[in-house]
Amino acid sequence: MKTPKKIAVLTSGGDAPGMNAAIRAVVRSCAYHNLECVGVYRGFQGLIEGDFKELNARTVKNIINRGGTFLKSARSKDFLTLEGRKKAFENLQNENINALVVIGGDGTFAGASAFAEEFNFPIVGIPGTIDNDINGTDYTIGYDTALNTVVEAIDKIRDTANSHNRLFLVEVMGRDAGDIALNAGIGAGAEEILIPEQNMGKERLLESLSRSKKSGKTSSIVVVSEGDQIGKNIFELAKYIEENLKEYEVRVTVLGHIQRGGAPSCYDRVLASRLGVGAIDALLGGETNVMIGIVHNKVTSVPFSEAIKGNNEIDEELIRVADIISI
Amino acid sequence: MKTPKKIAVLTSGGDAPGMNAAIRAVVRSCAYHNLECVGVYRGFQGLIEGDFKELNARTVKNIINRGGTFLKSARSKDFLTLEGRKKAFENLQNENINALVVIGGDGTFAGASAFAEEFNFPIVGIPGTIDNDINGTDYTIGYDTALNTVVEAIDKIRDTANSHNRLFLVEVMGRDAGDIALNAGIGAGAEEILIPEQNMGKERLLESLSRSKKSGKTSSIVVVSEGDQIGKNIFELAKYIEENLKEYEVRVTVLGHIQRGGAPSCYDRVLASRLGVGAIDALLGGETNVMIGIVHNKVTSVPFSEAIKGNNEIDEELIRVADIISI
Amino acid sequence: MKTPKKIAVLTSGGDAPGMNAAIRAVVRSCAYHNLECVGVYRGFQGLIEGDFKELNARTVKNIINRGGTFLKSARSKDFLTLEGRKKAFENLQNENINALVVIGGDGTFAGASAFAEEFNFPIVGIPGTIDNDINGTDYTIGYDTALNTVVEAIDKIRDTANSHNRLFLVEVMGRDAGDIALNAGIGAGAEEILIPEQNMGKERLLESLSRSKKSGKTSSIVVVSEGDQIGKNIFELAKYIEENLKEYEVRVTVLGHIQRGGAPSCYDRVLASRLGVGAIDALLGGETNVMIGIVHNKVTSVPFSEAIKGNNEIDEELIRVADIISI
Amino acid sequence: MKTPKKIAVLTSGGDAPGMNAAIRAVVRSCAYHNLECVGVYRGFQGLIEGDFKELNARTVKNIINRGGTFLKSARSKDFLTLEGRKKAFENLQNENINALVVIGGDGTFAGASAFAEEFNFPIVGIPGTIDNDINGTDYTIGYDTALNTVVEAIDKIRDTANSHNRLFLVEVMGRDAGDIALNAGIGAGAEEILIPEQNMGKERLLESLSRSKKSGKTSSIVVVSEGDQIGKNIFELAKYIEENLKEYEVRVTVLGHIQRGGAPSCYDRVLASRLGVGAIDALLGGETNVMIGIVHNKVTSVPFSEAIKGNNEIDEELIRVADIISI
Repeated sequence: MKTPKKIAVLTSGGDAPGMNAAIRAVVRSCAYHNLECVGVYRGFQGLIEGDFKELNARTVKNIINRGGTFLKSARSKDFLTLEGRKKAFENLQNENINALVVIGGDGTFAGASAFAEEFNFPIVGIPGTIDNDINGTDYTIGYDTALNTVVEAIDKIRDTANSHNRLFLVEVMGRDAGDIALNAGIGAGAEEILIPEQNMGKERLLESLSRSKKSGKTSSIVVVSEGDQIGKNIFELAKYIEENLKEYEVRVTVLGHIQRGGAPSCYDRVLASRLGVGAIDALLGGETNVMIGIVHNKVTSVPFSEAIKGNNEIDEELIRVADIISI
Repeated sequence: MKTPKKIAVLTSGGDAPGMNAAIRAVVRSCAYHNLECVGVYRGFQGLIEGDFKELNARTVKNIINRGGTFLKSARSKDFLTLEGRKKAFENLQNENINALVVIGGDGTFAGASAFAEEFNFPIVGIPGTIDNDINGTDYTIGYDTALNTVVEAIDKIRDTANSHNRLFLVEVMGRDAGDIALNAGIGAGAEEILIPEQNMGKERLLESLSRSKKSGKTSSIVVVSEGDQIGKNIFELAKYIEENLKEYEVRVTVLGHIQRGGAPSCYDRVLASRLGVGAIDALLGGETNVMIGIVHNKVTSVPFSEAIKGNNEIDEELIRVADIISI
Repeated sequence: MKTPKKIAVLTSGGDAPGMNAAIRAVVRSCAYHNLECVGVYRGFQGLIEGDFKELNARTVKNIINRGGTFLKSARSKDFLTLEGRKKAFENLQNENINALVVIGGDGTFAGASAFAEEFNFPIVGIPGTIDNDINGTDYTIGYDTALNTVVEAIDKIRDTANSHNRLFLVEVMGRDAGDIALNAGIGAGAEEILIPEQNMGKERLLESLSRSKKSGKTSSIVVVSEGDQIGKNIFELAKYIEENLKEYEVRVTVLGHIQRGGAPSCYDRVLASRLGVGAIDALLGGETNVMIGIVHNKVTSVPFSEAIKGNNEIDEELIRVADIISI
Repeated sequence: MKTPKKIAVLTSGGDAPGMNAAIRAVVRSCAYHNLECVGVYRGFQGLIEGDFKELNARTVKNIINRGGTFLKSARSKDFLTLEGRKKAFENLQNENINALVVIGGDGTFAGASAFAEEFNFPIVGIPGTIDNDINGTDYTIGYDTALNTVVEAIDKIRDTANSHNRLFLVEVMGRDAGDIALNAGIGAGAEEILIPEQNMGKERLLESLSRSKKSGKTSSIVVVSEGDQIGKNIFELAKYIEENLKEYEVRVTVLGHIQRGGAPSCYDRVLASRLGVGAIDALLGGETNVMIGIVHNKVTSVPFSEAIKGNNEIDEELIRVADIISI
């Protein structure tokens, strides 16, 4: 592989706070190494449509603190076709682009990996997703911000819960992974945390809430991951609890899309900056088909194939902590 | 009426940020005037159950910045019965309490007004509700904070809307009054605002969104008051828009209970402090059966009967401003 | 005066949160009325240098939530010379600009007023300053946001004050007007508030702090306006207190420039939107040499000469409230 | 060592956000293990004065989200004397307290270590300080929150910097360690970061700022650690820059005590919860004279003697990242 001279960058999949900081780091790292840099709008779809724009160190000013992605993101059905991918490859060649940085989650990496192999095109990935469900990195960009957003929202809800002696069920994001629920649940002082990796069973939940009430708690927060098995229909779960535990008035809040946005936390900005710099370092070092991640606070790389295996282990220590401190 | 020497204070109805600041002002104003002050827990229900606690200037330290109400709030079915109210009156007499300050919304004032007349007991009210639906005051305590909470939440959602070129329907509180939707909608830069006072009609909404798209907008926020007529079932409205406007991918977020909590804004803290001081001034001045409000930035009082008429006028100027700046 | 067809807008003086929202409202109101709109960069200096840019409804998207002013602001010595102002007038004429909207404080209005009369050029002003020191409007754009910023900062400082039983002196902005200190001081639960309009005297401050300690307070916050007479050198005041009140460990924090920035509050966004719309309405109605303000929640206009008289009355009711609730 | 049955907990040194969450975890972990728990007010001084209070699971409700420490903190000169420490030991014996958890920084651990050895009393420490200057733990409680506070403050300052094309020097905490400056500087997009571990030299700073200006930057933020050698007197540094770089108008903001307070971030709440649980586990496991820390996301313990060596290595990777992304 020749050393790249012109590098493209795109964001794909669900947006996450810190994506802009990662783009900025990629662009400025290119400037630092005297490489040209091109932004691709709307992810893989923009690659196919040739929706490119030259980026320099000044273009990316004042974005490190902004949520979302100024390069925008989109699903691309065309990229699933060989024809679409060929068009994308031609566009890259016509623009003399030698390498690509993709920022996104597992879907993004799967697409990027296939493309890299199909056309022998150098690609490096950066994990940008609030779900923290990627293998080979301790943290994904946006996850820390999402945790703070959830905890701040539940702090507000607790004001009402306390004032009215109520039980609140709060649904947070996480279809397959309970990381957000577990960490934000501990941070928000939740009485119970329902996660997809573990089926608590409705009965045990009732027992726990009942014990909680007897221990003198006057209000309660239960954090429910959207992928949890008994909490999947959170409104039905609320009804079930109200019917079986007369002492509680139950309310539901689905936090929804506020979890994806907002100014990134300092941690996410620093992480995004490090991974953006690391991605260009990796490309200059001849790496391809890898994701840049952070493991034990060191920037490292891992093959895409490894990254997309997902990160579904339950953290038993955290579950024990959650149990103990909600006593 | 004799000058009161011992005053009770309670909060009732939905909690609102700034209620604690109002209680604090009542308590400290009592201390300033050398009056005793008693806190009643859980609103009218605590009045009936004799759930009282002496409060002094130091008891209420470090609460001005806290959402909710440390005196708690509750619905009281017993207070709807003559027996319950008699019990409440006896408790007040047994404690030598000469007057009562109630903090809440129209339901609270209706109950207080009936009780004041029935037992000839001096009561003054303070408007504490995020809905701003009380007559005789330009602002209710908690309203300004709720507006900021909504606007901050939509700022986050807009990050995602922009990144994905999507349309978001965001439901905000306001069953009968569109004040929150209208003001937060303007503040959040919403493309359309649906309020209970006005039936826009689904067709006009489609037209407006269609025009919006043609004008070059790539993403849109529609703020929907929970009491709006076409937005009442916001998920069905979303489906209707998606079916009729193919160019938009539509998402729904129901902000829910986060709107009630949080540290009060400076405005709400100052307002609560002024109204709390004003309530004690009114009682010392011999007033009863009135609500203390703020009109044209002056603390004033208005009979309960006037206050609970509600405040349902549409602000035509704001609607025009919303129209113009969403062009 | 003929109806204007092309309107310029500029920001001048210290920046304030909500200026962007005001620019946006001016631009979109122009679009609504089919007027052309031109942005002038760097205030009056940009007027002289012809630093203009056409603005349309889409140019001002996604700025309602941003602090500062994207048109930038600058001091202009050249505008103090007749030569400079002539150049500015020629630039306006060359661009066929018929009217000007200026957003700023009293300095801005003084300059605008002189220019309007000198060249018989239609100008309307919008009050944008965190100081709230303008006559003819109940609120200036940015003031409400600054109050929230100050209160949030002092909430943080109070955590430390409480934890260590300390006295903190916190300096806030306000060279001539104590509005920020007085309102934020009440909102933050300050024990004492020192403002330029009132000379408390060092001895009375000591007495009050001493009484405060005796009443059982373990920590204290004193909010000091930068223009206050005994607090002018806040570090010397701290030393004076420490020397004379052995029981207190004193710390100083000067909040400084964080008070000018940040995402505007909902109130400031709505206010800015209303005044921006009002400014174009005024120009279309033939008004000139006036500032658009808000009085008793109605949009009104007042001659520049009236506006720049300043707003230096002490609000005696607020001072009494501050006294009572800090007991 | 016998298994402890009654455990005391105290906070000492500068307060840090998350200390309350750590106390809560200690208390609830005691409840979980059926141990009695006693809170000691005002650190070692309270130990000497016998300022104790029994704590149970309910006492610590609603504090996980609060900055500061409800047990308060204080310096203790008496604890430096043998007499004082003897008194402390007697008080612990009189109350049948078998072990102690101390939450604080290196000064706290030094005192605790000496006491543990002198009286053969089991003590375990938890690192609570915003400075992140403790050995044997990747993070100290409060550090992550402080970073977010700094970054949010600089985001506000940048609004003004951008609006006025100014250079701001922003002083942040860190007398011996540049961790806050370096991380928050990267997160805030600072052009230069001055830290105690590295003497940049005034000339190189001027050169860098000059280059920065030439590269097209119109405003700049320089983050200065309070312990930095050329930035020690930040006001003089500002004067020096203004005199030598005419193109910049320079402003100074000293962030000060706001950095210590505020609601803890989710990360700090979870970290505090884990370390609190870990501290009781360690005591039950027979450990003493150790600090519980987090290394590579695992809860571990390290002797006090090791912890207080400090953590003064420069992170060369972060310095390189800071250089690259400020291009």
